[in-house]
Amino acid sequence: MDFEAYFPIWQKLSAAQQELLRGHLAERSVKKGTVVHGGGMECTGLLMVKQGQLRAYMLSEDGREITLYRLFERDMCLFSASCMMNSIQFDITIEAEKDTTMWVIPAEIYRQIMADSAPAANFTNEIMASRFSDVMWLMDQVLWKRFDQRLAGFLLEEANIEGTNTLRLTHETIGKHLGNPREVVTRMLKYFSGEGFVRLSRGTVELCDTEGLRKIVEG
Amino acid sequence: MDFEAYFPIWQKLSAAQQELLRGHLAERSVKKGTVVHGGGMECTGLLMVKQGQLRAYMLSEDGREITLYRLFERDMCLFSASCMMNSIQFDITIEAEKDTTMWVIPAEIYRQIMADSAPAANFTNEIMASRFSDVMWLMDQVLWKRFDQRLAGFLLEEANIEGTNTLRLTHETIGKHLGNPREVVTRMLKYFSGEGFVRLSRGTVELCDTEGLRKIVEG
Repeated sequence: MDFEAYFPIWQKLSAAQQELLRGHLAERSVKKGTVVHGGGMECTGLLMVKQGQLRAYMLSEDGREITLYRLFERDMCLFSASCMMNSIQFDITIEAEKDTTMWVIPAEIYRQIMADSAPAANFTNEIMASRFSDVMWLMDQVLWKRFDQRLAGFLLEEANIEGTNTLRLTHETIGKHLGNPREVVTRMLKYFSGEGFVRLSRGTVELCDTEGLRKIVEG
Repeated sequence: MDFEAYFPIWQKLSAAQQELLRGHLAERSVKKGTVVHGGGMECTGLLMVKQGQLRAYMLSEDGREITLYRLFERDMCLFSASCMMNSIQFDITIEAEKDTTMWVIPAEIYRQIMADSAPAANFTNEIMASRFSDVMWLMDQVLWKRFDQRLAGFLLEEANIEGTNTLRLTHETIGKHLGNPREVVTRMLKYFSGEGFVRLSRGTVELCDTEGLRKIVEG
């Protein structure tokens, strides 16, 4: 089983802990668009991405969204296993952004291993600190950055993730990532288009002047 | 030394770990208003409140503030020791809101103990998850709640913390807690006053109708 190669602290677990983990691990494959955790779903378990891409987002009571962070190959999601820790008092939703294969570790098994293994607990600490940093960055953006800076930064990041300057994204989807209504996105994209930073067509945004977008981000 | 009574996992540390901690612990007393960590200050260390009250907040490049959470007696602050973990990639500022006595644990000593002690690492995990929950709540508020709801909620929480309905708070200070300009606070407080929820005088806000404020919070 190649989970061992993906889990960075595998060698630091005892033989009994490795056995326990191996015995409860499940592999799961989902299609793009599948919601793998959320909506008061029971404790799904920890997810480790083998291949594909997951998106973690917050959902408001009235259905608005904002993207918190992405999980790529080898990334692990703790918050789909919030029952693992008493102090996790919030809910997020996780959706496959591409066809994705992942391992699922039951929360209770992981909690049990963490209780005895300092390496496992410290690994978990680092993951949590890393997600915390993502959310603090986002908070800074939402609170103090202008929308043009956030949109320009988002487009550049997407181009980087996808490895192309032609992004297949609707204005609605962009709004869900950034936590803004579609109309606000459309208005700003039109402005970007007028300035020659992007070219718009049905369902795609093409970045024409990444240098210009970068200058907007820097403010 | 009564630190032992305050630190929940003291009994789960080895004699050597207890010795190490004892040998590097410092007690520090500061006056209300002192900034104990922040502004690119070097790694201050972990702080545990013995008596008093600390406020952790985010500071924008141009000097705006928003309160993230409060630390009361027996609460521990991790993020004043961000050098302890590679993945903590953000800065917060911590200020004494009352005259405060605290213990300071050097980051390197704590990291060393955590590396070997599963109980210490798991305790740290719970603290981080708890602060993460505070910040996720705040994100929800900032993104989706109306300002009247946030202000009413803040006033009720302050009254609860201070144990009085007469709050000594300027509009400027309230703005710093909530991340809004003073003018926005003043306008909403005037509306609350007109509705009979609060009575305003120089430097104080008196809550007259907590039931009414609670209804605003519930929306």
